[in-house]
Amino acid sequence: MKLLRKNLSELQKLKLNSYGKDFLLTWEKTSDELRAVLLLAECFSELHRLRRSFRVFDTGLAISIFRDNSTRTRFSFASAANALGLGLADLDEEKSQIAHGETVRETANMISFMAEAIGIRDDMYLGEGNAYMREVAAAVQEGFEQGVLHQRPSIVNLQCDIDHPTQTLADLLHLKKHFGSLDRLRGKKLAMSWAYSPSYGKPLSVPQGVIGLLSRFGMKLVLAHPEGYSLIPDVVETARRQSREHGGSFEITDNMEAAFRDADVVYPKSWAPYEVMLKRTPLLKNGDRAGLKQLEKQCLANNAKFKNWECAERKLRLTKGGQALYLHCLPADISGVSCARGEVSKGVFERYRLATYREASFKPFIIAAMIFLARIPEPIARFKKLLGHG
Amino acid sequence: MKLLRKNLSELQKLKLNSYGKDFLLTWEKTSDELRAVLLLAECFSELHRLRRSFRVFDTGLAISIFRDNSTRTRFSFASAANALGLGLADLDEEKSQIAHGETVRETANMISFMAEAIGIRDDMYLGEGNAYMREVAAAVQEGFEQGVLHQRPSIVNLQCDIDHPTQTLADLLHLKKHFGSLDRLRGKKLAMSWAYSPSYGKPLSVPQGVIGLLSRFGMKLVLAHPEGYSLIPDVVETARRQSREHGGSFEITDNMEAAFRDADVVYPKSWAPYEVMLKRTPLLKNGDRAGLKQLEKQCLANNAKFKNWECAERKLRLTKGGQALYLHCLPADISGVSCARGEVSKGVFERYRLATYREASFKPFIIAAMIFLARIPEPIARFKKLLGHG
Amino acid sequence: MKLLRKNLSELQKLKLNSYGKDFLLTWEKTSDELRAVLLLAECFSELHRLRRSFRVFDTGLAISIFRDNSTRTRFSFASAANALGLGLADLDEEKSQIAHGETVRETANMISFMAEAIGIRDDMYLGEGNAYMREVAAAVQEGFEQGVLHQRPSIVNLQCDIDHPTQTLADLLHLKKHFGSLDRLRGKKLAMSWAYSPSYGKPLSVPQGVIGLLSRFGMKLVLAHPEGYSLIPDVVETARRQSREHGGSFEITDNMEAAFRDADVVYPKSWAPYEVMLKRTPLLKNGDRAGLKQLEKQCLANNAKFKNWECAERKLRLTKGGQALYLHCLPADISGVSCARGEVSKGVFERYRLATYREASFKPFIIAAMIFLARIPEPIARFKKLLGHG
Repeated sequence: MKLLRKNLSELQKLKLNSYGKDFLLTWEKTSDELRAVLLLAECFSELHRLRRSFRVFDTGLAISIFRDNSTRTRFSFASAANALGLGLADLDEEKSQIAHGETVRETANMISFMAEAIGIRDDMYLGEGNAYMREVAAAVQEGFEQGVLHQRPSIVNLQCDIDHPTQTLADLLHLKKHFGSLDRLRGKKLAMSWAYSPSYGKPLSVPQGVIGLLSRFGMKLVLAHPEGYSLIPDVVETARRQSREHGGSFEITDNMEAAFRDADVVYPKSWAPYEVMLKRTPLLKNGDRAGLKQLEKQCLANNAKFKNWECAERKLRLTKGGQALYLHCLPADISGVSCARGEVSKGVFERYRLATYREASFKPFIIAAMIFLARIPEPIARFKKLLGHG
Repeated sequence: MKLLRKNLSELQKLKLNSYGKDFLLTWEKTSDELRAVLLLAECFSELHRLRRSFRVFDTGLAISIFRDNSTRTRFSFASAANALGLGLADLDEEKSQIAHGETVRETANMISFMAEAIGIRDDMYLGEGNAYMREVAAAVQEGFEQGVLHQRPSIVNLQCDIDHPTQTLADLLHLKKHFGSLDRLRGKKLAMSWAYSPSYGKPLSVPQGVIGLLSRFGMKLVLAHPEGYSLIPDVVETARRQSREHGGSFEITDNMEAAFRDADVVYPKSWAPYEVMLKRTPLLKNGDRAGLKQLEKQCLANNAKFKNWECAERKLRLTKGGQALYLHCLPADISGVSCARGEVSKGVFERYRLATYREASFKPFIIAAMIFLARIPEPIARFKKLLGHG
Repeated sequence: MKLLRKNLSELQKLKLNSYGKDFLLTWEKTSDELRAVLLLAECFSELHRLRRSFRVFDTGLAISIFRDNSTRTRFSFASAANALGLGLADLDEEKSQIAHGETVRETANMISFMAEAIGIRDDMYLGEGNAYMREVAAAVQEGFEQGVLHQRPSIVNLQCDIDHPTQTLADLLHLKKHFGSLDRLRGKKLAMSWAYSPSYGKPLSVPQGVIGLLSRFGMKLVLAHPEGYSLIPDVVETARRQSREHGGSFEITDNMEAAFRDADVVYPKSWAPYEVMLKRTPLLKNGDRAGLKQLEKQCLANNAKFKNWECAERKLRLTKGGQALYLHCLPADISGVSCARGEVSKGVFERYRLATYREASFKPFIIAAMIFLARIPEPIARFKKLLGHG
């Protein structure tokens, strides 16, 4: 109850303008908007723990569009929708007629007559996922303005080629809980590091999202990766600029040990080389299996040169007091568990396993907060009403 | 609010007897029942626009059975169910044991213990879809009478081989909105015309449903199609008879231009030739791929003779003031967009695009009205209560 | 209403300790717990008949995991969840990343942040299904204790390799209704008999569940099967012991006629030979298609020796007054209907068809009762409140 009062009081000081908006990239949002998501998510989590409902809709739909496999994000979105009182409707593109040439513009309207939110995961094609979300957003905007839709559903980015805001805000809430407050992140060193994985084609959205978000909290960010594994240049530039503006620092290294040295937080996670992702998009779109196979082979061979980019005890000992907080979006490639050699050693992972579960546990509440702020006209008043209705 | 009062007043004058019934073919329903669906659907749409709930169920299921791909009908049904307070449960025949020899009779009962409505789409086999719906209806009727089911769910035809009532009633509501009232449809000319499509095997349910419904409103109906593309003779006979009875007219032509001349409304839409659909049913049932391939080839070759059956500007100029209302159930085959040559030119479609979206937007409310009237014992009293609960 | 009062009064005499527990095997539950499930299920069914809601959750999820095809259990679980107010979320392992090496431990937590119940069907592998459920249970227990989960969802066994409690409790409620009370089962003879089927690999859970449950009600149980079709020895031992403890009897025979003679109840149902199921597990796990094919061939050839194990009129005439109650979990293999020769003759099945539908109709209410007892802290008080809220 203390938490609820405290967060409400902080919420009331913020300037909120998320109503009717989408959530596509964290760096398009003001700091106040991001703080509001965190504060509200924390409250929803607390209400849930107290077994108190935070349902605000009587009826209405939350639409999900998953263009890639997903367990945790799928369930997080389903959980958030349910908790707010929305029914879930999944647009399964295999079952639908989308494959038969319907335009995005039309389909976006056809599924939205009763939709409050549309959650989209589309992270396979560099240059495509976020663009697709904007296409859907433009379509429902037109539909709303032209009297097709009574309300304009808000798009929630459930992971794209550029950002993964529901994940990184869950990560941020985890950091806030761990260090006690957002202010205490100031000056802390976070190593966002590439790590070896025997798989290939992993999206860039997590490392990009992490540097794009955490560069706004005065942290000392170090991005580490082998040569050739760089991220989208624009996002790196954004992170660099934000670090400057928020009194933090940002550097890039090709040395995992250097990145880990004295780090307070480490986020070792594999991703595909930018150049490979660029080449992959046209191959995937053209269904060029031979080309993809060839690219995969090259990429895996290249990856194999960096098997020592593993978050093992020896590396962790380099961190602040040997005790850095380990972050991961899950599932991790764990050496000797899910693969012979992977992102993290069995011992390190096991030590932080439950912490990563708790990190993940914030995601449904983050998504619920995003939808709440985007769909409720007077969010603070409504939230106070919720608290009063204990 | 004025609309709500006006429609309520009209509703109170109607003789309603849909309670406990199915909705399988519009021509099995009285004019009062059809008018009630329209009036209620309009009210539900208005309530939704005002962000007022029209939920009437606390719990209960709406079952969907889709034997063909579908996006818009799937989401319309899901939206209607959710808005009324019903949970959606989809009978996915691939996941279920139906494929393993269960009888329809048994399955219909097994899925219905808590079902209020069963929406079925089954439009692939001529002579089968509507028959299947009646088989399900008979099974739940027996189950209800014999103490298996506590309530008998109502079947809603979401498109069959004969009719597509949720679509055509949405079309009709669109016409009502466009012309100001149902009475003003009297004397208006509507051209239900075949149109060219590079695809094959499209169901006959839309043109049949359109002539089967609109022949009851005193319109001048013209059905246009090339030789060989006739519809089920019984349905054509019904349309002819109804036109006579309701002071309209009905004629058939093989000339698209003649049909369009002075038309107030045009509905250019492709469908498969009746003879082909007749031959297709046994081939599909026997899984005769070679036979189907051969039939498809013949049919596409035949279709190709009629590429000029396209709703292009030149044809539209023939209509009343060159301004006829263009209808389509979507998705349309748009020349130069979804195919090289199709049902409608890019320019014409773009002009009417948002209007067709609005036409489609009525469908969830039409379905909600059908379920409401079939499941609520005293629908007018209940609806008044809804309005009072603002 | 009389039934509701009577059952409530009986419920109040029972010692309930299901709160926070799983429902994995009936023989792990006290008699009071089983009786409570039956009494509550009967009440829920009665409330549903009276069109009164027994919703107790405002929001929350029921997760389903089906590792085998299912129609009736899927819909029973969906119905129960919906009736209690829970949203359904299905973990489709094909769509999820489970196939990509996620551990059960992690996934169980990731899907459970808002879960009240997890229903699992996993009956394909002998030695695996129930073990998997316990693995999931252990994972959410750990997650709850370690602050990952705010609540620990209860696991409901929707059929495993050992038991099928939602089915057998529905069977038991059917028997209670048929004979008037549980006490009247005492001394009644029930023949749980193997029956011929042209299919192969059917799970042992139903016969095992039947003898494991009904041996606690003082019945004369006869288990009949051809040599080689024995059940898991431990379960048979449990049934034998329970029969002794509860004043009933238990015997095994390889003669279907002997089993049927003077029986009050017959449950003729096919299952795979224990030895075959043992061999099948490693073959399935290794994806050894050739080995499976070979085993299937052997098994079907062996089955074919026992085609006379069919529940036909001639055999039914041997039962008490020729009028034994026929039970089946459905779908049955009906001779001349779903196969040339099967478990039951067409005539016998048709006579009992609607009775088996009614038997099945209890399942959603059984599952609702299980979840209610496992998730509601003061179930009797809550139930009284439900009744008061008519």
